[in-house]
Amino acid sequence: MKDRILLAHGSGGKLSQELVKHYLIDILGNPVLNILDDSAIVQMEGVLAFTTDSYVVQPIFFPGGDIGKIAVCGTVNDLSMCGAVPRYMSLALIIEEGLPLDDFKRIIQSIKLTADEAGVQIITGDTKVVDRDSTDKIFINTSGLGYVAPGIEISGHNAKPGDVVIISGTIGDHGIAVLSKREGIGFNTSLESDCAPLNKLVTDILDTSTAVNCFRDPTRGGLASTLNEIAEQSGVSVCIEEDKIPIREEVASACDMLGLDPLHIANEGKLVAIVDEKYADAILETMLKNKYGHRASIIGRVYGKNPGRVTMKTSLGTTRIVDILTGEPLPRIC
Amino acid sequence: MKDRILLAHGSGGKLSQELVKHYLIDILGNPVLNILDDSAIVQMEGVLAFTTDSYVVQPIFFPGGDIGKIAVCGTVNDLSMCGAVPRYMSLALIIEEGLPLDDFKRIIQSIKLTADEAGVQIITGDTKVVDRDSTDKIFINTSGLGYVAPGIEISGHNAKPGDVVIISGTIGDHGIAVLSKREGIGFNTSLESDCAPLNKLVTDILDTSTAVNCFRDPTRGGLASTLNEIAEQSGVSVCIEEDKIPIREEVASACDMLGLDPLHIANEGKLVAIVDEKYADAILETMLKNKYGHRASIIGRVYGKNPGRVTMKTSLGTTRIVDILTGEPLPRIC
Repeated sequence: MKDRILLAHGSGGKLSQELVKHYLIDILGNPVLNILDDSAIVQMEGVLAFTTDSYVVQPIFFPGGDIGKIAVCGTVNDLSMCGAVPRYMSLALIIEEGLPLDDFKRIIQSIKLTADEAGVQIITGDTKVVDRDSTDKIFINTSGLGYVAPGIEISGHNAKPGDVVIISGTIGDHGIAVLSKREGIGFNTSLESDCAPLNKLVTDILDTSTAVNCFRDPTRGGLASTLNEIAEQSGVSVCIEEDKIPIREEVASACDMLGLDPLHIANEGKLVAIVDEKYADAILETMLKNKYGHRASIIGRVYGKNPGRVTMKTSLGTTRIVDILTGEPLPRIC
Repeated sequence: MKDRILLAHGSGGKLSQELVKHYLIDILGNPVLNILDDSAIVQMEGVLAFTTDSYVVQPIFFPGGDIGKIAVCGTVNDLSMCGAVPRYMSLALIIEEGLPLDDFKRIIQSIKLTADEAGVQIITGDTKVVDRDSTDKIFINTSGLGYVAPGIEISGHNAKPGDVVIISGTIGDHGIAVLSKREGIGFNTSLESDCAPLNKLVTDILDTSTAVNCFRDPTRGGLASTLNEIAEQSGVSVCIEEDKIPIREEVASACDMLGLDPLHIANEGKLVAIVDEKYADAILETMLKNKYGHRASIIGRVYGKNPGRVTMKTSLGTTRIVDILTGEPLPRIC
């Protein structure tokens, strides 16, 4: 049991201190975090974005990522989707007794790598340990703080008739990669989760044009749920074209085989941008140059009639309603 | 299963939306939260305190509180212990499939009541549902943001020789109340958790005098761990007197019976203040007038020699080392 997490690692006593020192501070340390008071203290001024997400993905290691990487990306992306520049994060861990310390270290190192890529600092945290069978290896919560630049007003409420809908790349990669690993289906060994921090893609876009009305990352519930949410929040309808939506062949065929709709499958490194049509081509061009946007595509338009409705022109030439997810085909996807 | 949480409540689809609308927005709603974008947007300026904590207490309802109340109090108190005025909170829920919706509602209502008492708003959140047996009913994470007033510099690193140590009330109530409920021991039906938001007590103290060098709430690991942390961070020693430490008879006898040291038992509504001796009496007087400080007591002093050491003059007249908790006598206490 020496190389595993024990209940006493969460007791607030000696082992807790050692875990914090040798795993968290040694890997993630910075002058604010290292103070180890009850809160982190920072100076911030302006319009701030504040967000939180818990991550319960299963398995905790999957092709293209792990629960640590996703915990940083998800929160960085939630800040970015409001046009904010991510700056600080918290990290709260709920660990199951018995987790190998090597796995724990690998997760914390992944958090560090991803936070560095995104340019965010982890400045406060918490560690709890629960008895075996009370959780599933590890759950992670991250909250994030970022700055919204003056003049930026990006919200799911701001889509306007005439706007153009852009997706930053292929859909469904994350959901199918995790499912494939979890169920041992192994459709295709090359498929990886798209899990990525999108803040630099967002900065590139906003440097090109601030004519962005909405950003949203189509995670749980997939592209279909994201578009339905925006259509409802903005009181508009959206029509997309099936042929324009980038999708990997292995994702399409996995969905086919399993009876899943790729529009409902989670992504963790994609964004939907709803932009003023005059700037759509320039924004698309910028996205195509970024490594996280190189398969970006204009997939549809926003309309004023039938508020709340999302439709799709299918490859067969028909039009169908794109409904929000109703069941839960893929639990524990993020 | 209609009256219970389902996996689909966490899917990002229709049932997720309904849960958010009918339970979270209806009870906790405010103009910032109701926007339901990926982040909350607020204007903040100055020195900010930022903190996070996950709550895994078992059972989720216990005498004097529940996991919702503790999730608000814990984070409010972590902000307060840096001298910050709590302002905003996030709320992230990991729910086990099958949790009765009535229990869920009761927890959210408790969160609302406690947040209102503390004067904080919940402005962003997240809900995940995990399959049965992957967690234990519900885990909650809250992160918090607050303002630190100019001139306030309160830290575990700031205790100085000559300072006076004050505890705001009886120790061990929370840990023993939870243990008693969990194990069905029922030492004494009148014992309740002390779970409480301490921000107003802190404001009262700082209005009396800003000569406070450290605040810390002795939660996990109890008073012993808190004093050891401060002694180490500040490079000082602390000596307390057993006879001065307020403790309820039922807590003392429960500890006696179970072989537990009350100095290691968690509190959720107490604070340790380490203050300049010139202002100690005035601060104590203020604390005694607050409902959460009415059994406050000066319990010891800070010294320069033997940095990192905490000792106690016992009721028998001897002096003993007060060590940090080494094992884990009471898991899942918060």
